[in-house]
Amino acid sequence: MKLLEEKIRKEGYVLGKDILKVDAFLNHQVDVEFMEKIGEEFHRLFKEEGITRILTIEASGIAVACMASRYFKLPVVYAKKYPSYVPDNDVYQSEVYSFTKKTSYNIRVSKKYIKENDRVLIIDDFLANGKAAAGLVDVVRQAGATVAGVGIVIEKGFQPGRKTIEDMGIRVESLAIVESMETGNIIFK
Amino acid sequence: MKLLEEKIRKEGYVLGKDILKVDAFLNHQVDVEFMEKIGEEFHRLFKEEGITRILTIEASGIAVACMASRYFKLPVVYAKKYPSYVPDNDVYQSEVYSFTKKTSYNIRVSKKYIKENDRVLIIDDFLANGKAAAGLVDVVRQAGATVAGVGIVIEKGFQPGRKTIEDMGIRVESLAIVESMETGNIIFK
Repeated sequence: MKLLEEKIRKEGYVLGKDILKVDAFLNHQVDVEFMEKIGEEFHRLFKEEGITRILTIEASGIAVACMASRYFKLPVVYAKKYPSYVPDNDVYQSEVYSFTKKTSYNIRVSKKYIKENDRVLIIDDFLANGKAAAGLVDVVRQAGATVAGVGIVIEKGFQPGRKTIEDMGIRVESLAIVESMETGNIIFK
Repeated sequence: MKLLEEKIRKEGYVLGKDILKVDAFLNHQVDVEFMEKIGEEFHRLFKEEGITRILTIEASGIAVACMASRYFKLPVVYAKKYPSYVPDNDVYQSEVYSFTKKTSYNIRVSKKYIKENDRVLIIDDFLANGKAAAGLVDVVRQAGATVAGVGIVIEKGFQPGRKTIEDMGIRVESLAIVESMETGNIIFK
């Protein structure tokens, strides 16, 4: 998506070797008008897939998934990732290893909000190692439901996330794929 | 907002003495079509206030704030609440005490995303003790900006949040005010 690549070049910046900060429009400030275009593009890509539910993960997936859901006219479910003070009973859960934090966390989705006959579109802001997306796939499959696809805003093409998800038999669509990046120079695939 | 009260009565439920779960449409599953009506209502209430920026806090405020922002045609900034693996430099921060978790956390907003001449609308899903909202007000004021109002989806009218914020000289608008609640019986003001 050309428009997204331009936006990343203009407003994003690279920290160290593998952190791309897009706080200006996605991860801290949200350019909602722009996110609508992102949502529309996900709809264009997945509209033939008979999607019945959109699943994302807190916190930064929520804005993207909500904008997409406007086009699909479907509810969004966001997996919980942070500890909750109200016990989460009756959930599907999956352990996700975070390379950046070098620790694991549990993602949880209430059994009420994924059903066996659902065709789920998973949406997230970033795909890097694919651990979070794989955890979401695991949760959907625990429910006996089908993952109809994974839609990603920014993929780090130099990390193995896409292979991880495609090896699970799942279609992955990323709106921008970063092939390499260093300060002042982001190259897209 | 009658529609919201009906929705809470139909889809919400009460846990213990002071937890109102609205996971069905706001805090886990998001009924985006319904959230658009919430967003429209915030716009109706605050459209004369010359708002230049919408501020919320991760995670559950994000969906609401994004839907409101569509009507204001303004960006949303969400304060960070969870630890970040990338150091947050150059932020305004405020310590917020959580009664439910009996511990404090720091909310952070990058100095890039609130400016001195901003008129900020703070939006959040719940108002109970008002500590999070007060922290957001503190952050805005550190920036030298003005809080033009606080918009809340569900206020627990039996807790002191409104007084806390109004005592700071700020207009509070809640779309539903719960006066008392117990299992099967939620009474609105």
